[in-house]
Amino acid sequence: MSTDDTTPAPGLSRRKLLGAAGLGALAAGAAGAGAGYVVADEPAPAVVADPDAVPVPFDGAHQAGIVTPAQDRLYFVALDLTTQDRDSLVALLKQWTVASRQMTQGNDVGKLGAVGGSPYSPPEDTGEALGLPPSGLTITIGFGRGLFVDADGAPRFGLGGQLPDLLQELPGFSGDRLDPAISGGDLAIQACANDPQVAVHAVRNLVRIAFGRASVRYSQMGFGRTSSTSSAQVTARNLFGFKDGTANIKVEDRQDVDDFVWVHQDDGPAWLVGGSYLVSRKIDMRIETWDRESLQGQESIIGRAKGSGGPLSGGDEHEAIDFAAVGDDGEPAIGLKSHVRLAHPDVNDGAKLLRRGYNFVDGSNGLGQLSAGLFFIAYQRDPIKQFVRIQRSLAGLQNDLLNEYIVHVGSGLFACPPGVGPDGYWGEGLFA
Amino acid sequence: MSTDDTTPAPGLSRRKLLGAAGLGALAAGAAGAGAGYVVADEPAPAVVADPDAVPVPFDGAHQAGIVTPAQDRLYFVALDLTTQDRDSLVALLKQWTVASRQMTQGNDVGKLGAVGGSPYSPPEDTGEALGLPPSGLTITIGFGRGLFVDADGAPRFGLGGQLPDLLQELPGFSGDRLDPAISGGDLAIQACANDPQVAVHAVRNLVRIAFGRASVRYSQMGFGRTSSTSSAQVTARNLFGFKDGTANIKVEDRQDVDDFVWVHQDDGPAWLVGGSYLVSRKIDMRIETWDRESLQGQESIIGRAKGSGGPLSGGDEHEAIDFAAVGDDGEPAIGLKSHVRLAHPDVNDGAKLLRRGYNFVDGSNGLGQLSAGLFFIAYQRDPIKQFVRIQRSLAGLQNDLLNEYIVHVGSGLFACPPGVGPDGYWGEGLFA
Repeated sequence: MSTDDTTPAPGLSRRKLLGAAGLGALAAGAAGAGAGYVVADEPAPAVVADPDAVPVPFDGAHQAGIVTPAQDRLYFVALDLTTQDRDSLVALLKQWTVASRQMTQGNDVGKLGAVGGSPYSPPEDTGEALGLPPSGLTITIGFGRGLFVDADGAPRFGLGGQLPDLLQELPGFSGDRLDPAISGGDLAIQACANDPQVAVHAVRNLVRIAFGRASVRYSQMGFGRTSSTSSAQVTARNLFGFKDGTANIKVEDRQDVDDFVWVHQDDGPAWLVGGSYLVSRKIDMRIETWDRESLQGQESIIGRAKGSGGPLSGGDEHEAIDFAAVGDDGEPAIGLKSHVRLAHPDVNDGAKLLRRGYNFVDGSNGLGQLSAGLFFIAYQRDPIKQFVRIQRSLAGLQNDLLNEYIVHVGSGLFACPPGVGPDGYWGEGLFA
Repeated sequence: MSTDDTTPAPGLSRRKLLGAAGLGALAAGAAGAGAGYVVADEPAPAVVADPDAVPVPFDGAHQAGIVTPAQDRLYFVALDLTTQDRDSLVALLKQWTVASRQMTQGNDVGKLGAVGGSPYSPPEDTGEALGLPPSGLTITIGFGRGLFVDADGAPRFGLGGQLPDLLQELPGFSGDRLDPAISGGDLAIQACANDPQVAVHAVRNLVRIAFGRASVRYSQMGFGRTSSTSSAQVTARNLFGFKDGTANIKVEDRQDVDDFVWVHQDDGPAWLVGGSYLVSRKIDMRIETWDRESLQGQESIIGRAKGSGGPLSGGDEHEAIDFAAVGDDGEPAIGLKSHVRLAHPDVNDGAKLLRRGYNFVDGSNGLGQLSAGLFFIAYQRDPIKQFVRIQRSLAGLQNDLLNEYIVHVGSGLFACPPGVGPDGYWGEGLFA
């Protein structure tokens, strides 16, 4: 395991590791079988071409995992810093960057221990992703307000002057029932992959590297993406059975991405240019209550048809919404308190979000009801003009009718630094 | 939603539903894109051939989901019966059978509501799997002791005489720290699929059908199969980073399956012939403690090499274990208290299990540690001679060294009836 002042040793490829270590080849019959695992050293034959075998680039102007088409699975973790030492924080960010670059490229974070290392030391990598392909893994880091100032506003790590004006506590919204234990955090890590084992492995190893410097505040598994961040993706359904995020920003729409996702030069601060703000909201959904609502009621609340996802003003899923349309009963086809109307840019000064949320099921609560819902994640250039603006329209029982069936129980706001070059590290602009 | 005395209406195919309902075709650009979804009515072109589009047969001599090669994801639920009425129980089992047949074949459990049904009624299906392929879904049902007798041993539903002798409470094992809230249950449903959204949808709709007759006691998501039930599957790794279940019964070994999985004619009772006993154990793993153990220590505890999975007596993963082998230090190569030795058939009167467990991560506990581990599932012909026999070897700090790092917190034993014909229903032999 890495110590405080060293970066992890470069990791071998998970595939090569098995070979180089002479730990024995996998049974021949197993190679290439199963869930598309690529374990052989030879190039895989064309017939098993597996998109999960091609890693998502790590280095770049922006962090991966924001405009990367949403992978199928999420593991999200928020941590609090336990160190008060600036050098220790810098070392942690450097080590995390190196380890994340390695893991996203399909390597382990270090050596298994038997390979050159000492068998009397713990393995540098925890091992549960050995033999698994990159699986589209992206790791995205965010900085909470607590990285810059403490609860009383006193500076931490000498970073008080770098605190972005927009990195405020989110305001309270009508109906919020936030649990502090699953809200906030000094640091956030969003790990997305098509294989949850790969996402869990990534977070676990980063948490392990942070030992003694940062500890986990809360974490959340998400099993089904609810947003299509790419126009090539089918819109997935949330646990209310509706297509979710149809009007989401698509990563192919470069103008929207530039206008609504990335922090610009004159937005400031300088270290955040090319970054983005991440808002997370854990939203419990009252599944059993919803399931007893009539189809017409469900569709009225959302403002879309359940089957097709088309707006109630007519047309298929991607038809433009006609908010002026009137139904046979003389009432607006898209109700005045429907979710789709109140969330729409037209009623929110044009505000749009890049949504990247995931469904979750945490099991059952003590009443036999599903502990389930949506772990909402959205990226944006300005959380006040975007998330807060939209949520103010939605929040409260007098507004979005959906609020009878959902409750926000967790919340987070993080400033995600820009991407790094091959020798850079996350947040380096903070310490320049 | 289905009422007590009717079976659900036959469901339309999820694909056809969208077409027949005239709810608008999916955007052309979306068809065939994304995670291999097949949404068009036309046969998919060969290039997108998707194994998840081919359903696992539901009808048969045995229930699916036992010797079906393990899918990637699990949603397991245990329920308690709230009805005391035998006819109501029979109706529930009939409805569950029909609905499960429909869902495993890629259909919804009924109509969306807009299709012939009334828009003023709740949809018969909750909708979140619309457009998703069967995804290998299997649904397997088990009966707990509480279906036959109450806590005082008094018969329930007139089934006291049908209680299998072997369906006893499992004995306590040294080190158990079982939570009654996540143990037991009158009924269990194991839903396995390659897409967790499909597994969640299945359980949720069965729970919904049971409303007023049975309620959820606990449920568990599992995200990574830990057992290779088929010799064509790569052995997956558990969260300790080790290959798990290498010596598992493989479904291709028909003699083992016959000897160790299915209840035989003279095992009795008659209604259970062709069925199997399901043992579930929720095993918390002390991840952070394990991660600080040396590689050599980890390998000694398990008795296998971490990288290859090969036994410490030499050879690759599937090499026969040589328990008599001695290391350079003169000690047994496979330690006397190693997990692999104490779990082995050779020291357990030949007992073997068909394991079907899954890794789980429930988030983090209040100490910032992972709430994670293994949801162990095993099928067997005789739980006393198999699971109990093996667990008696393993349990306790004086035995399996692994017990320093794991704790059993949940437990269940269920008798899974045989499969059904096209007109049959689960457990029909109980009511003949």
